[in-house]
Formats: sequence, structure tokens, C-alpha cells
Amino acid sequence: MRGTLLGIGVGPGDPELMTIKAVRAIEHVDVLAIPVSAAEEKSIAFEIVQEVCDIKDKVILPVVFSMSRVKEERLQSRKKAVERVKKELEAGRTVAMIALGDIGIYSTFMYVKKELETEFLIKMIPGIPSFCAGASKALISVVEGRESFVVMPSFQDSEQFVQALQQYDTVIVMKAGRKMKEIYDLLLKWNRLDQTTVIANCGMPSEYIGSFDVNREYGYFTTLIIK
Amino acid sequence: MRGTLLGIGVGPGDPELMTIKAVRAIEHVDVLAIPVSAAEEKSIAFEIVQEVCDIKDKVILPVVFSMSRVKEERLQSRKKAVERVKKELEAGRTVAMIALGDIGIYSTFMYVKKELETEFLIKMIPGIPSFCAGASKALISVVEGRESFVVMPSFQDSEQFVQALQQYDTVIVMKAGRKMKEIYDLLLKWNRLDQTTVIANCGMPSEYIGSFDVNREYGYFTTLIIK
Repeated sequence: MRGTLLGIGVGPGDPELMTIKAVRAIEHVDVLAIPVSAAEEKSIAFEIVQEVCDIKDKVILPVVFSMSRVKEERLQSRKKAVERVKKELEAGRTVAMIALGDIGIYSTFMYVKKELETEFLIKMIPGIPSFCAGASKALISVVEGRESFVVMPSFQDSEQFVQALQQYDTVIVMKAGRKMKEIYDLLLKWNRLDQTTVIANCGMPSEYIGSFDVNREYGYFTTLIIK
Repeated sequence: MRGTLLGIGVGPGDPELMTIKAVRAIEHVDVLAIPVSAAEEKSIAFEIVQEVCDIKDKVILPVVFSMSRVKEERLQSRKKAVERVKKELEAGRTVAMIALGDIGIYSTFMYVKKELETEFLIKMIPGIPSFCAGASKALISVVEGRESFVVMPSFQDSEQFVQALQQYDTVIVMKAGRKMKEIYDLLLKWNRLDQTTVIANCGMPSEYIGSFDVNREYGYFTTLIIK
């Protein structure tokens, strides 16, 4: 009797944007694994789940994925997280690891999956990505007709970003929070600020959806849609 | 008393991948507008809704969006569709127009919205895009870490497609059904068939998720994920 590992996307923030499938799966598992970047840290994904799902009988298992700048620390914490989840699976329990947004888009779950997929049964349940929810809230499309779009994480390389702006109808930057000033300067330079929508803390009380106000504070999970 | 127009994404095919918000909104509206490409044609989006939502008190309004190759016919049918929805809104009714997948990604709703947004209140509810659901079913990620991805509709231009393959970690082609042979030849030429997952009729009984078998028949709503 070996356990099953589920990766579940819980959507971008609004608890009602969880799918029926995600709610049912979470209510069915034995253990809920909650990725956090430090012990005792709050998890937005877990807050979403608590709003909608009946989890009073679940074992809650916070698993730390360090976001340290030191690579060795990140790898060590990942290894520990995998070991912790594995222990539950070996005991025959079903474990769901949750993620904000979609489970296939920049989720921590994929690291754990890769380490455990040869030994255990894996399932994945998709969630609404933040850029879809943000576009809907802003009453804009992501793409129409024959348009194409690019999605990039944060912002590594200004050349790649500018090239995407020139080649594609829509460019989406996720987890943009730490690079907002640099992105602002590039959008100003390329005269694209008018076509930019900022989506911060989508679906949460602190939500901001609107034009690019460079004087605001933006959190890590800020998404930009540039049409 | 003027009505409200809602655009609602119902996800890729599996009824359980509808969000709680979409189910509640559909059960709350007066009129359900169902886009079809010809009168009497079946709507997959409507089949999904019927599985999950209680719609016995709803007015069901099929609206035809012609997919004719003649532009004038497409425009005429769009105009008629908008008029039909407008009549309901003017009577003070709340109308939900549904779409497969996400409401902001290649949805017919955007045409109707553009024509009516100055006169009526609009709301949009996102849905799970087919490529997210397909990746989850195939147990692959869309993107991880610092990767970027491109989404393009069908397949217009082989140069643009090959460029995307070279520049981005993941390329997704939606509504690829009519161009499968051309895409196959390009993937063969560029030695990318091994990295390609085909997602056809995701979440439906006729679902196929797997490698690119060029001898299969594929429907219009086929998605390719090339990593």
C-alpha cells in the first residue's frame, strides 16, 4: 500500500476560483502539504483552501522551500521537503501539495514530483493562472483572433523582454514584483505604458488591478499584461 | 433597469474543472447565451454546463457565430448575435455567454463585449485554459523556474512557429486540428517530435493525450505542447 501524490492548483486568490475538482480532491486526501518559503510563514494558497474546503480531519504539513540566494540552501531545503512528503507516501497516505494559480506554471510541486514519480502514483489538477483571472477582472482579453502571447517569469533579461514586446501581440510578466522599476523604465522607453495592466494580489482584499503606477508598492506575485 | 452581460469560461471539457464562481454565476443568470457555429449545432461548452449546473429555469439562447470563409458572412452573423443578446439586456435580463476554456483566450465573447460595453455592465469569469488542463493530464509542466512560453492560435505562419521553437522553452499551439500535418512535418524537420504532447478533446470521453501520432484524426480543439 503506497500513497498517491497530488499536485493541485488552487487558482489566483479568490477562493471561488477554485475548481470543483480541486475542492473535492483536497477534501478527499489524508495530508495537505503546504509549500512555504520559511517555517511559520503564511501561505496564501492555504488561506484560499481554508475558505472553501472542509479540512478539519486533514494532517497539515508545511514544507519549506527556501528562497535563499545561496543555491546550496535552496537545494538542501528541497531535499528535506521531498523526504518529508515521501515519508507520508510510504506510510500509504494520499498527499496533496497545493500551489497558487496553475500547478503546471512555475510551481514548486514539479521539483517534488520529479523526485518521487518513479516510486509513487502522481496526479495533477490544474488551476486558473493569475494572468487569466487578472485579464477577466480588468475586462480585457489575453488574446483574440490570430494573436499570440508570451509568458515570462519575473524579469531576467531586458533584451529578451523587448524582443517579446516587438514580436508578440501580448506579453505577460509573472512574479514581476521585484523588478517593477526596471520594467517601468523599459515600458516608458518603448512607449507601451498605455497598453499595460498591472495585476497585484488578484482576488485578495489588497487587490490592485489598473494602470502602472510606479509609486505604488507591489508584492512578489504581481503580474503585468502588456497588449 | 438594464441587464448585465457576463462572459464565463467553463474550462476545457471536464465538468469538474468548472470553478465554483462559474457554476454559481450560471445558476444565477436569466439567460444562457450559447455560441454555436451553425444553428442546431451542438455546443461542448453547453454540455459541460448541463453536467454541473441547475439550469432548468434558464432561457437558453443559441447565438450563431458563422465560421464561413466569407468575411461578410462572419460579420453579418456576429452582428445578428450581438443584436439578439442586446435585446435580452434591454429587457433588463442578466445574460451569461459561455466559452470553452478561459474567457480571455480566443473567445467569441470578446466580439460581443466590444459592441455592448458602452451600454451595459460587463463581467468576466475566467476558466481553466485547455493547455493547463492538458499539461496536468500529461503530468508535465508548462514552465518551470526561469522558462518562458508562447501560445499561438492554429498555425498561420511556419516562420513565426519555427522562430518561437528556437526562442522559447515551451511553445503551445491551440486549435491546431486543421494544420496537424504541416505542424508534424515542421516538428520532424526540426527534430522536436520527442518533446511534443498532443491534447485532443481534453476531459471528454474521446480524449487523447500522448505523443504525436500523425495517422490519427484530430478535432479542431487540439492543443500541442512542445517543450
